[in-house]
Amino acid sequence: MTNQTAADATLDPALEAEVREIAKRAKVASRALQNATSGIKNDLLNAIADALVGSAEEIVAANTLDMERGRERGLTPGLLDRLELTTERVASIASALREVAGLPDPVGEIVRGSTLENGLKLKQVRVPMGVVGMIYEARPNVTVDAAALALKSGNAVILRGGSAALESNRKLVQIIGDTLEAQGLPRELVQTVDEYGREGGVALMRARGLVDVLVPRGGAALIQTVVLESLVPVIETGTGNVHIYVDASADLDKALPIVMNAKTQRVGVCNAAETLLVHEDVAEEFIPRAYAALTEASVNLHADDRTRNLVPGGAGIASATETDWETEYLSLDLAVKVVSSIDEAIEHIRTYSSGHTEVILTESLAASEQFVDEIDAAAIMVNASSRFTDGGMFGLGAELGISTQKLHARGPMGLAELTTTKWIVNGHGQVRP
Amino acid sequence: MTNQTAADATLDPALEAEVREIAKRAKVASRALQNATSGIKNDLLNAIADALVGSAEEIVAANTLDMERGRERGLTPGLLDRLELTTERVASIASALREVAGLPDPVGEIVRGSTLENGLKLKQVRVPMGVVGMIYEARPNVTVDAAALALKSGNAVILRGGSAALESNRKLVQIIGDTLEAQGLPRELVQTVDEYGREGGVALMRARGLVDVLVPRGGAALIQTVVLESLVPVIETGTGNVHIYVDASADLDKALPIVMNAKTQRVGVCNAAETLLVHEDVAEEFIPRAYAALTEASVNLHADDRTRNLVPGGAGIASATETDWETEYLSLDLAVKVVSSIDEAIEHIRTYSSGHTEVILTESLAASEQFVDEIDAAAIMVNASSRFTDGGMFGLGAELGISTQKLHARGPMGLAELTTTKWIVNGHGQVRP
Repeated sequence: MTNQTAADATLDPALEAEVREIAKRAKVASRALQNATSGIKNDLLNAIADALVGSAEEIVAANTLDMERGRERGLTPGLLDRLELTTERVASIASALREVAGLPDPVGEIVRGSTLENGLKLKQVRVPMGVVGMIYEARPNVTVDAAALALKSGNAVILRGGSAALESNRKLVQIIGDTLEAQGLPRELVQTVDEYGREGGVALMRARGLVDVLVPRGGAALIQTVVLESLVPVIETGTGNVHIYVDASADLDKALPIVMNAKTQRVGVCNAAETLLVHEDVAEEFIPRAYAALTEASVNLHADDRTRNLVPGGAGIASATETDWETEYLSLDLAVKVVSSIDEAIEHIRTYSSGHTEVILTESLAASEQFVDEIDAAAIMVNASSRFTDGGMFGLGAELGISTQKLHARGPMGLAELTTTKWIVNGHGQVRP
Repeated sequence: MTNQTAADATLDPALEAEVREIAKRAKVASRALQNATSGIKNDLLNAIADALVGSAEEIVAANTLDMERGRERGLTPGLLDRLELTTERVASIASALREVAGLPDPVGEIVRGSTLENGLKLKQVRVPMGVVGMIYEARPNVTVDAAALALKSGNAVILRGGSAALESNRKLVQIIGDTLEAQGLPRELVQTVDEYGREGGVALMRARGLVDVLVPRGGAALIQTVVLESLVPVIETGTGNVHIYVDASADLDKALPIVMNAKTQRVGVCNAAETLLVHEDVAEEFIPRAYAALTEASVNLHADDRTRNLVPGGAGIASATETDWETEYLSLDLAVKVVSSIDEAIEHIRTYSSGHTEVILTESLAASEQFVDEIDAAAIMVNASSRFTDGGMFGLGAELGISTQKLHARGPMGLAELTTTKWIVNGHGQVRP
């Protein structure tokens, strides 16, 4: 745990004051969208999409400056790839915007309501948060995506993107601002604090009372920093140390494709599997089959001794250490362990789970019920791949991330998670007895 | 804003380690209630109520020690009154416990669910948070109340009460622990860190990952400290700088009883009115009437000049300052201002509102809609007293407090706010395409 927090970080007071002014302008601007119809918001998003496509050359030119600087600074090919914008990528960002425009609008939903005995009419209505802050890394597509989700849910947004994408983000925000103005809306609905660098992000985290919620999007280190440093409430997304437990009664013909899908379909994502636990009753049959298929798919195993002893040449498999049980590899690596009982599997998961997704493969009703009851995670899969924990797969629409916290949102988050509610009470002169 | 936060407070590492052990034991103990039926939980609460009544003499004896120390330390009569336990008060605490036992159990509710095209069966189910922390002041009744709400919602709780109530709380927690054991449940479901003093509270605020949510209950200073210092997610309850706006089209015969009820029915509560805004078109008629009734009820006004000029002898009324507009008096004081328009009223409220409850009195549909749309608060009342913002009044049952934050809970909070959800997905071998 760091001892350095946003509250005590040395921060230039003039800079902090400027960021607070930005946040105040965002709050005022947010009122323009607070009661806007879905039609107005959708037209806006479609207009931004048009503007981006129309300005694709300018955007790519700005991005070229970032790319050049990135190469000079020696960014890895992976980071450069995430940073790069091409005309095709701009078109795909625009098409994601149109998709958000097509999603149902959460604002205005009546969550519950009733008429009390005394005649008071109560309703709890979904309303925008107000001002949303987003802190993310050098992926310029997130700039547009974050703005789209915030605007569609009726909020103003303040962005803090990775410094490597400075020029790209500046251009994107300028185009969004111009479109807002052309639609008769304040350009302060979408602002950035990128020009203030890292301190801008810190000032944003300290703007409690002005920024209603902060959503960090990116790697574990970024999210952890924001969670620990922020005075503004945070929605934590992220880490998935996902386990698959193959029970004694698992149907091994179903189990193997699920393990392969969960581990190899896409490795760098939070809902990919990281540890495989196999009940000893089926280990002798399952482990060699899994080993063959996983090795074929270039997966490196990190296994306990019982596993290694079940595989011909298993001495060549890396011995799993404590670190392996704790690690979200996000790569073609998988920790493997043989357990003596479902209780041991549950205990292992309780110790190492990040509370994202946990999977049991079993044909036993009792085992599935025990696992579902006793495991505490955002999502629990019975006989299905962990890769299904996803807003789109769940039918919730565009995804803001997968929350692994318990407050406000847990699991895949959609537009509704960027809203809050208010109670509206209609009377005709009632007083409390 | 304080620069001293929980993350950097100097804290004895041995003490922090002990508190973390307490939190770990709470986490393990919480599993005993995680899937307990409502019957088991209700029996437990009723048994605790019986035990408290049966041990009333012991409780009062322990409390006498606190009272004596309190008198020696020169606690005010008000604080001593809050601290005091009598046989009657113990009976009333027990009866509050039985009421919580009678509330509907939020755990197990299926929040939503569906069957996807690929046959996956999804349900989102309400489950306990796990470990709840409560930080409060020297009111021993809160010790039992907090434990009851946590247990009924299936959680373990770690308490940090005011040091003035140390002996009372120790006795209460001991009785609760004995009852838990007698019911075959771990006594670590209800623990305190009171013996560690203020540092115990700080260690609790730092126990991120072990404590799932912290709920501060008490005065504004306590809540503010916890909100700013805690690394554990906090549910903020509290401050109510409540406004009543009497519109140009208000029915003044309805308005006066509402103003009187909101200001005088109970003054020390967050849903009491603190500022009265009156439209200039009705000020000449309404202000003198309100002044007479409020003065009769011993309410001190703090008014702007327009108000003071409308009252005979109004020069004797205190002139309202910026501080008056900002203050939640929690006393027989009321700030009063004449406004020229509903827009001015809304602007004033936007500037000074704490986002708790705001009231409009009007017969105009347009005015009521504008107010409801443009004001951002947990509750908005049209032609009703602000005193109705209350879990009991709203029909939500026992109240944990009134949330003025936008995340997780907004407005009156009941048992459901001490729960989270998990997604349970049942398949038969599906993998992600």
